[in-house]
Amino acid sequence: MHERLKKQLDFILEIDKAKNILRQTHLSGHGRRENDAEHSWHMAVMAVLLKEYANEEVDVLKVITMLLIHDLVEIDAGDTYAYDEKGNESRPDRERLAADRIYGLLPEDQGMKLRALWEEFEAYESPEAKYAHMLDNFQPLILNDSNDGGDWRSHGVKKSQIYKRNAKTAQGSEAVWSYMQELIQRNIDRGNIKDE
Amino acid sequence: MHERLKKQLDFILEIDKAKNILRQTHLSGHGRRENDAEHSWHMAVMAVLLKEYANEEVDVLKVITMLLIHDLVEIDAGDTYAYDEKGNESRPDRERLAADRIYGLLPEDQGMKLRALWEEFEAYESPEAKYAHMLDNFQPLILNDSNDGGDWRSHGVKKSQIYKRNAKTAQGSEAVWSYMQELIQRNIDRGNIKDE
Repeated sequence: MHERLKKQLDFILEIDKAKNILRQTHLSGHGRRENDAEHSWHMAVMAVLLKEYANEEVDVLKVITMLLIHDLVEIDAGDTYAYDEKGNESRPDRERLAADRIYGLLPEDQGMKLRALWEEFEAYESPEAKYAHMLDNFQPLILNDSNDGGDWRSHGVKKSQIYKRNAKTAQGSEAVWSYMQELIQRNIDRGNIKDE
Repeated sequence: MHERLKKQLDFILEIDKAKNILRQTHLSGHGRRENDAEHSWHMAVMAVLLKEYANEEVDVLKVITMLLIHDLVEIDAGDTYAYDEKGNESRPDRERLAADRIYGLLPEDQGMKLRALWEEFEAYESPEAKYAHMLDNFQPLILNDSNDGGDWRSHGVKKSQIYKRNAKTAQGSEAVWSYMQELIQRNIDRGNIKDE
């Protein structure tokens, strides 16, 4: 038992570092930058509450587990901003190496299971991956909207970039994507997002 | 749909504040203080990985949901340190009021469901509540042990206080409690915990 538990605890201690990986999004109330652990926690709660809007039947435990671990690769690979084109080109290679090391800390059966979930998220094909991606795109919108679009303004984000990023969001939830479009339009009207 | 979604989003935005509720525990690497959202995320991952050590069969989705939301009352009631006796006397009343307000933001069916899960956690009776409490007590031990027991030393924590706090931890997992006792003894030997 001890050898196995040791590996599990090595992983559990290692992922503590996700609490220091900062995203571009700021907390509500014009707060500090959000970190990966907080982002994942917030989406996991959303996964429970918004399940009724998923287009397809989803296994919520699978979605939550996916969301809880999908950003762990950023412990090595760093956070890549949604609208950083160059960074997103090199992202897959950097993240694959990170996955080898981080999931490799776990006992083999558990490492393979979590890595497969991360790969399923990245593949964006299963109902769970689609619903999880919708949440991954929606959560920062909620915070940014609550902060008068500060993150969009400081990065000069354009409507076309947001729509490109969300090209498949409706596949996770048409109902939520319809609400997101209203939210985006409201921020275009306010000058927070460039109408380009 | 809009009225219901609006309530769900009001709740989702409100709980963002959990990211600013600081605990006494410090992050690994002698880091800053941990917040409730990070703590909940960390335990949720642990709930997935350590399930095999639970004494009884547990519904992991239920455990995770419980862990994700069990500290939300601290948005109003604040964090009460495990070894603050006075604070823990007034804690139940303060937290009940907080639960009324915070879970009351949700559509009634979801608010009742989450509140019932929080009450189940507090009641410490179901297999899921016992497993969740074990994780709630184990997670800060892991961080504190990785930081040479800094949090125990700065609060002058005694062995008897830790054992009192963990009086029922073995009910969640005898295997993990056995490991926790080794970890505690190691920190007594090093002078991080007072042998009283």
